[in-house]
Amino acid sequence: MNMLESLGKKAKAASRTLANASTEIKNSALLNIAQMLRENADRIISANEIDLKNGKESGLSNALLDRLALNETRINDMVQGVTDIVALPDPVGRIERGTLLPNGLQLIGIRVPLGVIGIIYEARPNVTCDAAALCIKSGNAVILRGGKEAINSNMAIVEIMRAALEDTGLPPDCIQLVEDTSRESATALMQLSGYLDVLIPRGGAGLIRAVVENSRVPVIETGAGNCHIYVDATADINMAAEIVYNAKCSRPSVCNALETLLVHKDIAEKVLPVIKQKLDQKSTQIRGCKKTCEILGNSVVPVTEEDYKTEFLDYILAVRVVDSIDQAIEHISKYSTGHSEGIITESYQNARRFEREIDAAAVYVNASTRFTDGGQFGFGAEIGISTQKLHARGPMGLSELTSMKYIVRGEGQVR
Amino acid sequence: MNMLESLGKKAKAASRTLANASTEIKNSALLNIAQMLRENADRIISANEIDLKNGKESGLSNALLDRLALNETRINDMVQGVTDIVALPDPVGRIERGTLLPNGLQLIGIRVPLGVIGIIYEARPNVTCDAAALCIKSGNAVILRGGKEAINSNMAIVEIMRAALEDTGLPPDCIQLVEDTSRESATALMQLSGYLDVLIPRGGAGLIRAVVENSRVPVIETGAGNCHIYVDATADINMAAEIVYNAKCSRPSVCNALETLLVHKDIAEKVLPVIKQKLDQKSTQIRGCKKTCEILGNSVVPVTEEDYKTEFLDYILAVRVVDSIDQAIEHISKYSTGHSEGIITESYQNARRFEREIDAAAVYVNASTRFTDGGQFGFGAEIGISTQKLHARGPMGLSELTSMKYIVRGEGQVR
Repeated sequence: MNMLESLGKKAKAASRTLANASTEIKNSALLNIAQMLRENADRIISANEIDLKNGKESGLSNALLDRLALNETRINDMVQGVTDIVALPDPVGRIERGTLLPNGLQLIGIRVPLGVIGIIYEARPNVTCDAAALCIKSGNAVILRGGKEAINSNMAIVEIMRAALEDTGLPPDCIQLVEDTSRESATALMQLSGYLDVLIPRGGAGLIRAVVENSRVPVIETGAGNCHIYVDATADINMAAEIVYNAKCSRPSVCNALETLLVHKDIAEKVLPVIKQKLDQKSTQIRGCKKTCEILGNSVVPVTEEDYKTEFLDYILAVRVVDSIDQAIEHISKYSTGHSEGIITESYQNARRFEREIDAAAVYVNASTRFTDGGQFGFGAEIGISTQKLHARGPMGLSELTSMKYIVRGEGQVR
Repeated sequence: MNMLESLGKKAKAASRTLANASTEIKNSALLNIAQMLRENADRIISANEIDLKNGKESGLSNALLDRLALNETRINDMVQGVTDIVALPDPVGRIERGTLLPNGLQLIGIRVPLGVIGIIYEARPNVTCDAAALCIKSGNAVILRGGKEAINSNMAIVEIMRAALEDTGLPPDCIQLVEDTSRESATALMQLSGYLDVLIPRGGAGLIRAVVENSRVPVIETGAGNCHIYVDATADINMAAEIVYNAKCSRPSVCNALETLLVHKDIAEKVLPVIKQKLDQKSTQIRGCKKTCEILGNSVVPVTEEDYKTEFLDYILAVRVVDSIDQAIEHISKYSTGHSEGIITESYQNARRFEREIDAAAVYVNASTRFTDGGQFGFGAEIGISTQKLHARGPMGLSELTSMKYIVRGEGQVR
């Protein structure tokens, strides 16, 4: 697809200028973007109305229409997001290591932008603005490929951001939108090696799988969260119930929400009824193992193997009673997507063991899995939560959008 | 391919034990490996003789037979390599960041192994030992897929290493060899997502391209080095000649060797004859632009566009006279594989500009590109030189074989 290659070339050229832009200039550009988005809110809302109208006509669900909708409050949030990024430290140029080698060469490891970042995402138009602002601050050009549902909103937002870049003296091609929202354009973007340095999918499990399977460009997997909490025999019962309720019910649609609860057999009879009472406040369905059904009675649906694999993203919780922490760790190792896993315990030894042996981006002791988030972790904004181990793991902030290079200064050294 | 999946499962199980093994145990295992390799040198050499015999019969080139050959000296080097790794600091468990969040959560970022590493390589059997030892030290299980030419040598080496692991109390499945050396087994390894955390190809450009294009597992690209040196107008002529000679001729077959020389027009007439005189010592062929041909006369072959793209890995050097540092940077940005690039200059401003604007793993001022190497950079051993920007860039030592995880310790915090 020639169009994508042309975007790639323009992005690469723009990225070279942006990579060497000072923090001052990048911040001016972001402030300019914020101001112009605010001033042009009406234009964005008009474009969004077209998307909403089209969405209703094509039968989008209310949940999707809600994600798609922009109003003044949401645009203010977008603008606030951009100005928040101005306040974050710029990772580019940071000297991370350095030494004088025995032969007198000075070796310096320095943070540099990745170059050109591709983002494939779905219906939410605010991703357009968030992602582009994070890329600009970290010195990367970005090629955005949003969903067709939001194309009019995205075109309006990108046009405004590009004008603001140009106005600041930066190449507008630092931010480009793939306006063709066909499946072919997504595939073409995944094949754009040579121009793209990384591709980040943001969206549902289906999108992420498609990108991982088809991309020739390095990918950072984000978002899949089949999260567990294990209530150890020694757990504080009220703490367990509060944490489980928060992890499951505070926002079930997000990736750091709880999906399967594991409970030690010695505490199951005491803790499960307390947990159920809390979950009932949100009419949460429990899908339990045999033991769970025995303890909680009729309202529990028998759990299946498939349930253990499922990210419900809903008011549904799988529950299994286990014989030991070993069995809990075994279960998590089998079903976890490596996002966020927690233990509730008063045992020092079990806490340490869980921390060590669980292989996930974030491992919690006596706290809700819902904290896995760039903002909560104090990184400022995030571009996503990586569930792979290469390059970045967990919430990805500005530093995770950079690479490094070595500078070697000599006086004629040869080997 | 069921066989590969079975290797994958065993590797994953073994990796969980290895990830939690102490540095002491891992070092004992490595020392044990070193000792058993030394004690069984004859067995390895016998196996290698079969490979050499097969190789001669199937008409392998002398260069390939040389890479394949093991003798006592080379086995001693292998053993020394393993004991050198014992002395390196263990990256696993290192606390890289940490903070107390405003809500009282303690957040700790800790280095952990990647998990299971796949290595695809070609004829050199010493890679089997080097790569496996680096993986063990960094807490990773490894699946090795070497070339068919070295299969008997590789089987002998792996069998000895596995016995040494078992003897130390570590699972032998931490090191596994794919004994099927068909093209299908390589492809199957590239599809082994779910078991492999990363795949590292070590070998020629063809192998690396095949892996990048076909792998569903995250890949670290290594090795392609179309390296340039730019001799600025202000360069010290003798320094330039020494560095160019070293970068081109000290070992032309390696990835950090010089392939294209760029020379500023104001110094070309003075410096090119001095450089040519040095290069003539190794009968190096010069493929020059029109200006280079005018200056150096008949012995120069006219350069082609294709030459500028080529990693000769031989006593051949492309030479182009450029009008300015801008043109030099433009040329490098167009043809570089992002490995190692150098400038020879006495101009502070041009040195800083080259450092900033050249996008490569290693950027040199007044030194030979040949220094891009884990040993030379002081990282100890290396598993390869990454030419991509994701995860690792430049020489990859033990730290680059690890990821990180966050541990979050609370007292009942909910969001």
